[in-house]
Formats: sequence, structure tokens, C-alpha cells
Amino acid sequence: GIAAADVTISGYGRTAIDYQEGRDQESQLETRLRMNIDATTSSDQGVDFGGRIRLQYDDGEGSSNVSPAYLYVTAGGLTVSVGNVNTAFDSAGLIYESEVGLISRSFGNAQGDFYAFSTSGYGNDEVRMNADGTVEIVNETDNRMGVAVEYEIAGASVMASYVDPDQTTGGDDEEFSLKADYTWNQIALSGAYVNNAAGVDGAEKYFVGAYYTMPGTENGVGLNYIDEDSDADNQGKTIVLYGDYAVAPLTTVSAYIANNDRDSNETDNAFGIGAKYDLGGAYLAGSIERGYDENVRADMGVRFNF
Amino acid sequence: GIAAADVTISGYGRTAIDYQEGRDQESQLETRLRMNIDATTSSDQGVDFGGRIRLQYDDGEGSSNVSPAYLYVTAGGLTVSVGNVNTAFDSAGLIYESEVGLISRSFGNAQGDFYAFSTSGYGNDEVRMNADGTVEIVNETDNRMGVAVEYEIAGASVMASYVDPDQTTGGDDEEFSLKADYTWNQIALSGAYVNNAAGVDGAEKYFVGAYYTMPGTENGVGLNYIDEDSDADNQGKTIVLYGDYAVAPLTTVSAYIANNDRDSNETDNAFGIGAKYDLGGAYLAGSIERGYDENVRADMGVRFNF
Amino acid sequence: GIAAADVTISGYGRTAIDYQEGRDQESQLETRLRMNIDATTSSDQGVDFGGRIRLQYDDGEGSSNVSPAYLYVTAGGLTVSVGNVNTAFDSAGLIYESEVGLISRSFGNAQGDFYAFSTSGYGNDEVRMNADGTVEIVNETDNRMGVAVEYEIAGASVMASYVDPDQTTGGDDEEFSLKADYTWNQIALSGAYVNNAAGVDGAEKYFVGAYYTMPGTENGVGLNYIDEDSDADNQGKTIVLYGDYAVAPLTTVSAYIANNDRDSNETDNAFGIGAKYDLGGAYLAGSIERGYDENVRADMGVRFNF
Repeated sequence: GIAAADVTISGYGRTAIDYQEGRDQESQLETRLRMNIDATTSSDQGVDFGGRIRLQYDDGEGSSNVSPAYLYVTAGGLTVSVGNVNTAFDSAGLIYESEVGLISRSFGNAQGDFYAFSTSGYGNDEVRMNADGTVEIVNETDNRMGVAVEYEIAGASVMASYVDPDQTTGGDDEEFSLKADYTWNQIALSGAYVNNAAGVDGAEKYFVGAYYTMPGTENGVGLNYIDEDSDADNQGKTIVLYGDYAVAPLTTVSAYIANNDRDSNETDNAFGIGAKYDLGGAYLAGSIERGYDENVRADMGVRFNF
Repeated sequence: GIAAADVTISGYGRTAIDYQEGRDQESQLETRLRMNIDATTSSDQGVDFGGRIRLQYDDGEGSSNVSPAYLYVTAGGLTVSVGNVNTAFDSAGLIYESEVGLISRSFGNAQGDFYAFSTSGYGNDEVRMNADGTVEIVNETDNRMGVAVEYEIAGASVMASYVDPDQTTGGDDEEFSLKADYTWNQIALSGAYVNNAAGVDGAEKYFVGAYYTMPGTENGVGLNYIDEDSDADNQGKTIVLYGDYAVAPLTTVSAYIANNDRDSNETDNAFGIGAKYDLGGAYLAGSIERGYDENVRADMGVRFNF
Repeated sequence: GIAAADVTISGYGRTAIDYQEGRDQESQLETRLRMNIDATTSSDQGVDFGGRIRLQYDDGEGSSNVSPAYLYVTAGGLTVSVGNVNTAFDSAGLIYESEVGLISRSFGNAQGDFYAFSTSGYGNDEVRMNADGTVEIVNETDNRMGVAVEYEIAGASVMASYVDPDQTTGGDDEEFSLKADYTWNQIALSGAYVNNAAGVDGAEKYFVGAYYTMPGTENGVGLNYIDEDSDADNQGKTIVLYGDYAVAPLTTVSAYIANNDRDSNETDNAFGIGAKYDLGGAYLAGSIERGYDENVRADMGVRFNF
């Protein structure tokens, strides 16, 4: 039999002026170059196999990162992936939908941690001082292992993922997450749940979201709700109302207002507004947001895809 | 003149359940994604030049590794390579032939160390405490340098390699190895020798192996003998009898019995049996083995090539 | 609109015997494999966007380096780049023109430091001992950020670059550099200036150079002058006279004589001679040079492009 094997490199580059009120240097340059290297093979039975390693540079890093890999098998709408997998909670279709600007940020996003595909590698090297006075370099997060299962049919997608922070030892708090997405005419619905988020015992999060697209347009409004109020997290509940509107050809304005009830907030209300201008293969975008710490952040720049 | 230059990315992905009797978590997931990036040019005279860097992720690593490179020149069957070279001993045609399963392992393999192409990079960063109390990060194996020469003609291949553990200092124990492979009708013969294996003074190893393929089939039997009994190694002598048999279309069963006379063994006999099912571009495989420590290990999974 | 996106990998490999009088092991093997991964997109308006990450292995490194990235936008001869940019001073057309041999070296080059595209990443990890006795791994150069602007028209190119050693803090000594190149018939002219070179306060350098190509040939002579005599540098002034001569088809001999007036020199005069033989897609080259320390260095090897 003949198999069709292929390797592709795709991704995006972006650079922006990133303003953050209240930090030492308020205006800095943000740069990112992402290259996903995907290797795939189709077997004689029509089963697809593949794997991904990501090369990515972000400003503030001394070198480009070379991510851990994941591997996957796809057949008949079912995909099983192993390794540095995309997680269900992070893959919920609408969970990042309120983001604005070039850097794609929103205070309506989840405030706490959960696992996702790791671009920069698991954890950091640390120096450990042993009792005998010797020192050594260790990384205690190298043995992370994830598994994800996704099933797609018609306008629906359901996914479950499981990440063991260290598969060589027992007693870890493995993260488990679920998500479901459904699109029906003008309505998109999305929900997700994660337990032991990012390997933290008892960190439970819930997400539900909906988006309505006005018929015959790309304009729409959405509403997201994220509960991260467990004792292990204490990030409160976040609700965000957002919308997108094509004000002119190729030009879209997006905005959101978010409310989060975390105790440590200066204010419980945050908002943002952004605009995007399509260049065809690239776009210009900018945004201005005000956060729960009452500080403003803003960005303006260009992004291209390849 | 015009030169033909090309860059290709090829390799494989695999994932398996890896069972190992007696370790903390006996069942773990094994994943590997290997991408060899090969750059080549043919000169006007028909001389081929090339170089390789390997990207590889293995479970248990925090990020994908980006190997040191080797460079090579090939003309008229003769290849000279420099840098992170493949070594002669590691390249002996039959030395890994008794391996079974998805992860490709055998207790009939050499038990001790010798140099090979380094995927994960030379050595590890270490922290050195200086006499004055300062600490710094060092890697004392960065200056490794290898050279290999291979000549191929008809069914024969001979190869010699030389690896200096640190080319910037004298007094190292440079590894030197030789191998020869020969195929004649149904018979394949392979032999190899290495001195100062892995840069260890006096570590001498010998290998001879033979494989017989039954006419008109892919079934065969082989016998390997590896002597690692020098005082510098003390890994004993290993003899392994192995065979492969196509039990059904696309399905091959392989098995081996190995004997090693090392003092530290619980038992001197090990064995393994595995099966492989060809999917075309990918295969399913599994194995079960029992080692010199009387523990069982087993694997089961899928591998694809690209 | 449709955009044309592309990813290419190009670069070169080289290996040489590198002789250096007076070091522990005088003859060592030099190897380099450089792979530039360039991702590009053209927008509907004819604006080009791109980014580069470089993979490179050099002997003496434990693994291949994965450089920080730069991103660029080009339109109508004007290129703006951000990130790990090429700097103006390093890009002056003739500044490295006196180099000879396979490894491309010259004592007529600048003697001190200035920023350039960083292949091996910004700085090195270091271990910091805190007052409380704990130790941690830090890299204080991760936040470097560069911007460069280049304009090309007809035979002229002008460029300016700016590199902030740490964009997250104030008070750094940002490097600023300028260059201009101009070609007019047989004459090429090049000039450059840098201030706070490599982030060192007050390190100013000046460069001017000219090259004359004899009509109808590839033979030529050049003269470069580099002033690195500021108190922050104290590398003196360097003047180098050099030339190239095609002694036979495909064979070019190059030579230089350089004078540098730095106090620490054993001698103020250095010279070098090299030869190159074109193989078409690859070349053989060698050189012998004598430096300001009165030691001889020499190389001989092969390089290929892809």
C-alpha cells in the first residue's frame, strides 16, 4: 500500500506596541513568531496519524522555545492525542471569544490557571541544594503526560482531556477536563469543566458561553460565564458581554464589558475595545482595555499568517 | 554551474503503553516524535554534501531536543562525516536486529555504553561550586567531536569512526570503532569492534552477528554475540538467538532468547516476543520481555513514518 | 483576497581543520550547520511580511541553538524589522570584506563588540546566590529588543538600528547604529557608525570602506578603516588593505594586510592570505593568517550552500 506523508510549517508572526499602565517601562515592544511543524501520514485504511512540535519566539525569552510534542490518530471524526496535548477546557470554542486587539487579550478570560498545550516547555530548570552541600539542576515537571479524546460530528464537538503532572509518581492531582461545542444556525454554544486545574487539588472551574451572529452579517454578540470560585483558586466568577461589528469593509470593531467578583480586585468591572483591519493574509489591530486593578493596557500592531 | 539544493524533514512518531514490572508507576505512556532536518547539495562534479539536525521529543523531557549536527560529503560510495556522527559500532547492520515491540527493545542488545549520534545533546548542564563560594553552570562535554568514514559497494559496507570526548584538551580516551556488513544471497553477516567505548579507557567491545532469510519469504533466524567483558565494562558476554515469522498477511511475530553472564544478573537468561501489524505507512506493535533482573516489561502501541 | 504564504529553510554547512598556534590542542575540527527558517506572506496590497528563526550548530556547543526571532515588513524598498534584528553596523556592506579562508576570518575586522543578529540566544543562564542562601537560575539579558529600518534604492542602501539591552527597565545604554552603502560602476563605498556598542556606555565606533573592481573581472582591491579608540573600548584604530584575484578559472586568491594600534598588541601588523576553489554549490577554501599576538592561525575545508 502507499501512504501519503507530509510535513508542513505554519503559524503566524506578530509585533505590537504594548502599553501597560503602572509598570516600570510602560511601553514595550511585543513580538511573537510561531511555527507549528506538523508531520502527518495517512494509512491505507484512511486513518490519519500526526504529530506536532512548535517553535516559538516571544519577546522576553533568550531563545526560541521548542515545545514538547503531541501525537495523534484520527479516524471517522474521532481524534485521540497523547503527550503535550491540547486540553478540553482550553479548547472550548468560545472561551477566548471576547478577546480584542493584536495580542488577543481580554479581562473576560479565565483568571486562574489550567493546563493547555505547552509552548515554552514544562516548568523551568531549578537549582536544588542538597543536604550534603552539593547543588544540581533539576526540572520536576518533565514527566507531565496528557491524553485527549475529541469527537466531531456535524456542528458539534465534544472533548475530554486528562493531564498527569508526573506520570512516574503516584499521588498527583491529575487535571481532568471536558468541553462541548455546538453550532445551530445563528447560535454557537460552548461549555467546559475542569477539575484539579493545572494539577492543583480541588481547583474546579466551569464555563458556559453563547454567541449569536446576526443573519447575513459577521456581526454578533456573545456572553460568557466562568466560575473559578473554588477555595483552591479564589479567582471569583467572571461574566463578560461582548460583541463584534463590521463598521466598514475589512474593518471590525469589537468590545467587551466584564465583571469579576474576586476579593483582591480594585474594581469588579473591566472593559476593552479593539479594532481590526484586514490586509489579506495579514491584519492591523489595536485595543485599549481597563483591568480589575484600574490600570489601562493598550496595544497596536500587525499580524500575518503563513 | 547549477547546484541542486534541498531540505527535507522526515522521521517518525510513536506512542505506546509501556509496562515495567517493579517501578513506582508500572504503566506509563511512552511518546516520541522524531524529525530529521536534512539539508543537501550536489555539486557540479556529482559530489553530494549534506548536514543533519534532529528535533526530537521523548516523554520525560521538558522540551523537544535540538541535536548537535553532523555534516557529510559523499562521492562514489565513500562518505566522510564530521561532528555529531553516527558511529561504526552503533551502525553495525545486525546489532539491534533482535529488538521487538513498538519501542524496539531487546535484552540481547549491548548492555554497556558506546557513542552514537546524540539526539539530546552532549551531556547535561551542571552546577559547579568554585572554591571561592561562587557557583556557575558548566557543561564539560560540549567539545565532543566525531569523524566517520563509510564505504559501500555491492552488498558490502565498511565503516570506521573516531570520537574525541573533548577536542580542546589532550589526554582524552578517544573512542575508535570499526564495523563491516556483508549480504550474500540469503545470508547477512555483521561484525564490529570498539575501543575506549563512550570515552572510557580500556572499554573494548566485540560484536558478530548473522541472519538467514528463508528463500521466498521474509521469515528468518539470526544469532548475535557481543563481548563487553573488559575490566572497564564488566557487562559480560551476550548471545542472542532470534527469529521473525510472518504468521498472516501484514502480521509478523518476532522472538528472541538471550544469555548474558554478567555477575550482577539475577538470572542469565532473558527473552522476548513481539508482534507487528502493518497498516501501510504505520504499524501496530506490542511485545513482552523478561529481563536479567527477572522483571517483565511490555509495550503496545502505534508508530507512523513520514 | 488571496495571500501567498511560504516557509523556506536555507543556509549552509561547513567543516574545516582549524589550526591556532599556541592553544592547548592547536589543530581542531570546526563545524557549522546553519538553517534559516523564513516564513513570509504577501498581503493584497503588495506588502511583504516575514519572520526568521535560525537553527545553528557550531562545534563546542552541546546542542544546536534556536535563535530568538525577528519579524519584518517590507514595502517599496523600505523594511522595518523588530526583535532579534540585524544591526546597521554589522550590516555595512564592506565591513567583513577582507575576510579569507573557509571560516571567513580577518584581523582587519572590528576588534571589539557590537550587537548583531544573535544566533545562540541572548546571554547565558547564570546561577545567582541570594542573600538567604537560596540559589536560582537567571538570564538577565532575555529582555533585549531591537528595531531596524532599511531603505534600498538603485545601488544604495541606508539603515538605522536601535537595540535596547533590556526593554523592561530604564537607564540602559541602548545601542544605536547607522550605515550607508553605495555602488557606482566599479566602486563600492560603505560607512557605518555605532554608539553604546553592545550596550556599553560611550563605546563609539566608526567605519569607512571602499572597494574597486577591475572592469570585466572579479578582481579587486579594497581599503577599510575602523575606529574603536573610545575610552569605553580601547581597541584602537584598524586599517586593512585587501584584494582578490582570480588566478585560474574557479580559483580566487585573496589577501590582506592590517594595522591596529591597540596598546596590548604584541605587533601592530597582521596579515592573511587565502584561496577558494568553486565546486558549484560548494567550495573548498583555506587560509593562513598571523595576528596581533604574533600567532599563526590557518584553516582548510569545505562549505556548501542550500
